[in-house]
Amino acid sequence: MTGSPQAGRVQTLRWRDGQLEMIDQRVLPAEFRYLRHDSAEAVARSIRDMVVRGAPAIGCAAAYGIALEALRERDAAPADFTLRMERAFAVLAQSRPTAVNLFWALARMRKCWQALAAQPVAAQAQALLAQAHEMLAEDIRVNRAMGAHGAALLADGARVLTHCNAGALATAGHGTALGVIRSAVEAGKRISVIADETRPFLQGARLTAWEMVQERIPVTLITDNMAGFLMSRGEIDAVIVGTDRVAANGDVANKIGTYMVAVLARRHGIPFYVACPMSTIDLSIADGAAIPIEERPRQEVTGFRDHQWAAEGVSVRNPSFDVTPAELVSALITERGVIRQPNRERLAGL
Amino acid sequence: MTGSPQAGRVQTLRWRDGQLEMIDQRVLPAEFRYLRHDSAEAVARSIRDMVVRGAPAIGCAAAYGIALEALRERDAAPADFTLRMERAFAVLAQSRPTAVNLFWALARMRKCWQALAAQPVAAQAQALLAQAHEMLAEDIRVNRAMGAHGAALLADGARVLTHCNAGALATAGHGTALGVIRSAVEAGKRISVIADETRPFLQGARLTAWEMVQERIPVTLITDNMAGFLMSRGEIDAVIVGTDRVAANGDVANKIGTYMVAVLARRHGIPFYVACPMSTIDLSIADGAAIPIEERPRQEVTGFRDHQWAAEGVSVRNPSFDVTPAELVSALITERGVIRQPNRERLAGL
Repeated sequence: MTGSPQAGRVQTLRWRDGQLEMIDQRVLPAEFRYLRHDSAEAVARSIRDMVVRGAPAIGCAAAYGIALEALRERDAAPADFTLRMERAFAVLAQSRPTAVNLFWALARMRKCWQALAAQPVAAQAQALLAQAHEMLAEDIRVNRAMGAHGAALLADGARVLTHCNAGALATAGHGTALGVIRSAVEAGKRISVIADETRPFLQGARLTAWEMVQERIPVTLITDNMAGFLMSRGEIDAVIVGTDRVAANGDVANKIGTYMVAVLARRHGIPFYVACPMSTIDLSIADGAAIPIEERPRQEVTGFRDHQWAAEGVSVRNPSFDVTPAELVSALITERGVIRQPNRERLAGL
Repeated sequence: MTGSPQAGRVQTLRWRDGQLEMIDQRVLPAEFRYLRHDSAEAVARSIRDMVVRGAPAIGCAAAYGIALEALRERDAAPADFTLRMERAFAVLAQSRPTAVNLFWALARMRKCWQALAAQPVAAQAQALLAQAHEMLAEDIRVNRAMGAHGAALLADGARVLTHCNAGALATAGHGTALGVIRSAVEAGKRISVIADETRPFLQGARLTAWEMVQERIPVTLITDNMAGFLMSRGEIDAVIVGTDRVAANGDVANKIGTYMVAVLARRHGIPFYVACPMSTIDLSIADGAAIPIEERPRQEVTGFRDHQWAAEGVSVRNPSFDVTPAELVSALITERGVIRQPNRERLAGL
């Protein structure tokens, strides 16, 4: 460990000296370092390469990407400024396809920008930065509100399985799924976490375990294929995961493997909760079948980083997400409250 | 790759110059090497350390372990010989707890040994070696017979998911689950294999993929948590796995993660087959709950070999096997034929 976060606070993204700094999540937990970004292009590359990941964090990063580009071009002629901003929106939109928060954040930045059309370019840039700051602060408020609603669902002593990392590192802070766990712990409940390692990127082993160890919340690491065994032995009381996009009918896209956990939870009568800020609900998509599923490079599956172990010549599939049908979701936990047995009617009513 | 097997033939175990040679499966596929063994102790260590793994291969290795010890002690006085042989049986029995083939093979060697009681020690040793050779040859015959029965279950063009490695490397040759696939291919069917990587020991990525690539059977590698996604997309037609022990009621112990695959297969109406030599059926155990489940070292879960990636301070669970209830098993494929919907009555009738 070559560095460590400020006491008690994981700042996934932070604004320093006119640049966006992001924790490099590819090298955690062995190394703790920030990478600096001064352009939309640089932010898009870091999203694509998973320096930053997690739907809400990607959304905030993209907002700063727009602000950075505006600041870079603050002395440009209005026509050039418009051209470069459009290019920034396009490059960020192409970084990762599955999480809707990215598109939600870009749409919000665009709306803000459009409302500024009458102002000088430099003023537009400052206002866009203020908007990105506000979205970061809002994300933490939203996570705190979700945490408060969700904590009520967890009993004292609950053993909670989570998949991937929906923690402070996946958001501006506090976390969605881990935010619920943090809020329950803050409310005095004794919660222990079972973390799926989450191949191929190992967000569970590297990020969720690290976050929980930092805060002294008991955490047990398992490989993804052990969840069914623990459920069959009665060692899991609840499942909480995050999500990258929820369709209008309540279908949930999340990290690959989430669907398998949901099917197992149903078989064992274990509640399956999805922590889901309103910004992750995409009413424009009818159901999960229409959510684009990103396929990532083969090297992630044939090994981990430079350590490659698979037989040469093997073909590979690497879908990064899967879809859990709404019928397997016990409840969505949002900042506005808990939606039990989510379906089209309940989501439309929000 | 520093070596390679003889053309077209994987000899997991082979007898050379009075020693047992075993492919070191910990270093495949990067390295192909044989390790030599001259005592029961050495064989037991290689079973425990997973130089050799797979229930049938472990059984054969244990038989040779007994033969090796007898040969080492062939000049001993009868009383000393008996003492050392008892120690050999004990050390081998303690090597790994879950696979019943180990205990089955040891019981068979003991029965052979007891029948030799009237003979000189040196003759006992030679007869025990002959018995080990016979068990090796028999395992291949059994796998071929299972392959023939099982191949009939696979349609031309079938996309078959397998978990872990139940191939030539898990047996004396041909394999159980992969033996069925090999036999189907030999019968002219176009079969493609989807291999779960099988964390933590990565038998799928390293061994199953390697075996299939060697024989030019199309194979696609996925992480364990992707099986549900592929099933939900209609990309899996059947599942075949091996087993380490089948209880009297048909419950199946196999590599951790098998249970999750079985639950998913049931949800998607995909047949779930278990290739199971008769030696793996343990009528002395009423159901799966009584099968001992080995827990292995934490370092297997916190990383792979010397490459450790998990957050320090995390707790770990590492059950090496799980139990799939008989109700989820479409059929057991044995050398005597296919047992559909296995249950207590059908197994007792064998």
